[in-house]
Amino acid sequence: MPSQKRPKKSENFSEWYTSVLIDSGFVDYSPVSGIIVFRPDSYFAWEKIRDVTDALFKKSGIQNVYFPLFIPEHLLEKEKEHVEGFSPEVAWVTHAGSSKLDERLAVRPTSETIMYDVAAGWIKSWRDLPLRMNQWNNVVRWEFRHPTPFLRSREFLWNEGHTIFATKEEADLEREEILGIYETVLKDYLALPGIKGKKTDNEKFAGAEASYSIEHLMPDGWVIQGPDFHNDGQRFAKAFNISFLGKSGKKEYAYQNTFAISTRELGVMVAVHGDDRGLVLPPKLARVQVVIIPIYNDENKEAVLKYSKSIKESLDSNLRVFVDDNDAYSPGWKFNEWELRGVPIRIEVGEKELKSQTAVIVRRDTLEKKEIAVHSLGNELHKLIDVIHANMYERAKKVLESHIHIVDSYKQLINVIKKEGGIAQAPWCGNYDCERKIKEETGAKISNLPFDAIGKEKGKTCIYCGNEAKHIANFARSY
Amino acid sequence: MPSQKRPKKSENFSEWYTSVLIDSGFVDYSPVSGIIVFRPDSYFAWEKIRDVTDALFKKSGIQNVYFPLFIPEHLLEKEKEHVEGFSPEVAWVTHAGSSKLDERLAVRPTSETIMYDVAAGWIKSWRDLPLRMNQWNNVVRWEFRHPTPFLRSREFLWNEGHTIFATKEEADLEREEILGIYETVLKDYLALPGIKGKKTDNEKFAGAEASYSIEHLMPDGWVIQGPDFHNDGQRFAKAFNISFLGKSGKKEYAYQNTFAISTRELGVMVAVHGDDRGLVLPPKLARVQVVIIPIYNDENKEAVLKYSKSIKESLDSNLRVFVDDNDAYSPGWKFNEWELRGVPIRIEVGEKELKSQTAVIVRRDTLEKKEIAVHSLGNELHKLIDVIHANMYERAKKVLESHIHIVDSYKQLINVIKKEGGIAQAPWCGNYDCERKIKEETGAKISNLPFDAIGKEKGKTCIYCGNEAKHIANFARSY
Repeated sequence: MPSQKRPKKSENFSEWYTSVLIDSGFVDYSPVSGIIVFRPDSYFAWEKIRDVTDALFKKSGIQNVYFPLFIPEHLLEKEKEHVEGFSPEVAWVTHAGSSKLDERLAVRPTSETIMYDVAAGWIKSWRDLPLRMNQWNNVVRWEFRHPTPFLRSREFLWNEGHTIFATKEEADLEREEILGIYETVLKDYLALPGIKGKKTDNEKFAGAEASYSIEHLMPDGWVIQGPDFHNDGQRFAKAFNISFLGKSGKKEYAYQNTFAISTRELGVMVAVHGDDRGLVLPPKLARVQVVIIPIYNDENKEAVLKYSKSIKESLDSNLRVFVDDNDAYSPGWKFNEWELRGVPIRIEVGEKELKSQTAVIVRRDTLEKKEIAVHSLGNELHKLIDVIHANMYERAKKVLESHIHIVDSYKQLINVIKKEGGIAQAPWCGNYDCERKIKEETGAKISNLPFDAIGKEKGKTCIYCGNEAKHIANFARSY
Repeated sequence: MPSQKRPKKSENFSEWYTSVLIDSGFVDYSPVSGIIVFRPDSYFAWEKIRDVTDALFKKSGIQNVYFPLFIPEHLLEKEKEHVEGFSPEVAWVTHAGSSKLDERLAVRPTSETIMYDVAAGWIKSWRDLPLRMNQWNNVVRWEFRHPTPFLRSREFLWNEGHTIFATKEEADLEREEILGIYETVLKDYLALPGIKGKKTDNEKFAGAEASYSIEHLMPDGWVIQGPDFHNDGQRFAKAFNISFLGKSGKKEYAYQNTFAISTRELGVMVAVHGDDRGLVLPPKLARVQVVIIPIYNDENKEAVLKYSKSIKESLDSNLRVFVDDNDAYSPGWKFNEWELRGVPIRIEVGEKELKSQTAVIVRRDTLEKKEIAVHSLGNELHKLIDVIHANMYERAKKVLESHIHIVDSYKQLINVIKKEGGIAQAPWCGNYDCERKIKEETGAKISNLPFDAIGKEKGKTCIYCGNEAKHIANFARSY
């Protein structure tokens, strides 16, 4: 139900974000602090993201598996950087029934350690590789910072891809494929653009040799990390003895990658597309794509309702259509309610439309109205879904592009970070010292080193120290 | 890899069961006692079961949601019988990072309490009902009895349906629909028959008013509970204040149901269909439905491999086909390996088949061989998949039917339970005393009161006490 007090997105983004999520019924709070309930609209969107991503994984030869939720403490400790990264936020199971367990069990924050411990036994020879596994599951990271629905949640859903190769070359080749899959899903289903690039050593995943990400721009000018991909090199392979008899007849250690997309994307989707009226759902992820709202009085009620239902029945089953014939609310109330819920297309039908055999269609993304003859409605709706999707993507892309500021001086960088908001793209020497000092002085981290700026660092000098630039880096405040 | 020492199914079922699961690569042990790893073949089968069941749920109007993994201790305690049933096997989270939590969190053994606590806030009026929710997730029940892969596992995957109605009549009507969905999935995908019926009060779900189940017969003559459905009446509604303004304008409590199908079914599927050569997978759940094994020598290798691959490419993409061109193993070794893994159809091709443009097909369920012209292979394989499925179902059904013994005397009942194995179907007075004494004396529980025997109790007397029979009951040893 719409809350009278919801702030404007442009005035108070974070309050707008939480209240629009709750008011629209997309999620609800739960009795467990920092963990939300996925109501039908949000879970439906996640299911679609899972299914389309999974189909692309399967096409690429990746197979799904399922490993235990619990990881014995001694296993989690096997890779030093990994455990240091995760143990501060592990939820620990210590008792079962009334018995104390001999060893504490971590509720998985990620599954490297338990997967590699077992998979090591499956690999004997180079013929057993590559072994490309994935699982869709829930993980727990007990963050002590302020939790935010989807964006920083103590439990979230994700895919965790874990792949094992005989050679570094093969492992490296996978990167472009997987980031490409994520980019496709973001663009074609969530209508979200992003910036692909490499994380700095300081920002990489705990236990990885190199991390890569797709970064999103949020409406408050901050950046948030989306799907990621990690080259783990032989670190875990050595810790878990993932070795094999190579073609040469010698024992070799494997090379590994991991990658993930999570329910955080639902939060980015809401944040980027929503407006002061509520959610704006990308049509392919909307549980209800088209809502039909009959407008009637006591005399024409039966005829208008019949007309509404006949329209629904005339549409093919690939469209998800709902007729809101609830008597308790007025059409005006319903318009607001379905706008708040972000349903992409509203159809209004009353006596006038019945007589002319037409319907009024209203787009959620632009609020444009038009009248359409009922016989061409099916075609029009299918076309409109594509048009709305494309418009949402292009709109978000323009916003992103207009917030990438190519800066030449540290003063400009500070101005972008502290005043304009968004991303300051600048040459960087590659040294942690400069990265750290910029962070301390401006609050901006390097979100990533964007792929599409590779080469542009040539002949440039570091924005901070003035030494030769090794990379072009995106500086921004980050979630 | 085949183990030389695997016992015969008929001689030592439980050892056969575990070793066939591990040897075939269907599952593996994990470092967490009592929890297995789902390898690709088992997870694929579960995914299919999930997807086909989910499609039927969605068609029926049920919506998926996702609630937190953790349940605060005070919530779990709200319904007395429910907490008594589950608390002895709850895994407790007591710490996060290095901090002790203020309240212990149960890793969900089932989600009634957390779902109803939240959903109570979503229901104001009769117009908000029915609310039919479902979630596909993982649950933990820390059983202290001997764990068995799939059949009794400390973590398992399932659906938990939770539906809320305004009236008892509507809640009751859902039972037939849901049990029908489960029966369809079991029959059409797992090729498993079952016995639908009502559980006795003593055997019902903790917190339910009445429970219903589909029971399976295992090869050792014991019975195991499959999918179930529970009428919860108003018990949880009263404990969690799920009330609404009725049409009459008065506050009323809702009526609720819950229902589930779990990964236990994968164990039943393996147990019922497998044989001394290994798994026999129902074709619709097999990740690889058809394996092509080329038979070649050094001279014809290239031609035979090319022929094998051309056969795969000629088949349509609705068939899941794999060419095993691994050089390291002989064709004979591969025949054994793929039989062990339960792949429904094997195609053998060598020089002879290449010359005659034919292929030899071998059915896993019967081991029958036949030669087929390559041009009709696609059609034949699709037909064969249906034939194999039907044969597996009919075979299992015959075994089930031949193990249901209608008995007239307690002596016969004892004979069935202790000697013949299987189910003794007998009239019962409905009193717990007789149920308990039969259990104590024979080890047999009432698995359920089968729907298809309703009415047959008329004029009969209880097999134990001789009083008037109220039901026909299926007595059997139970997992």
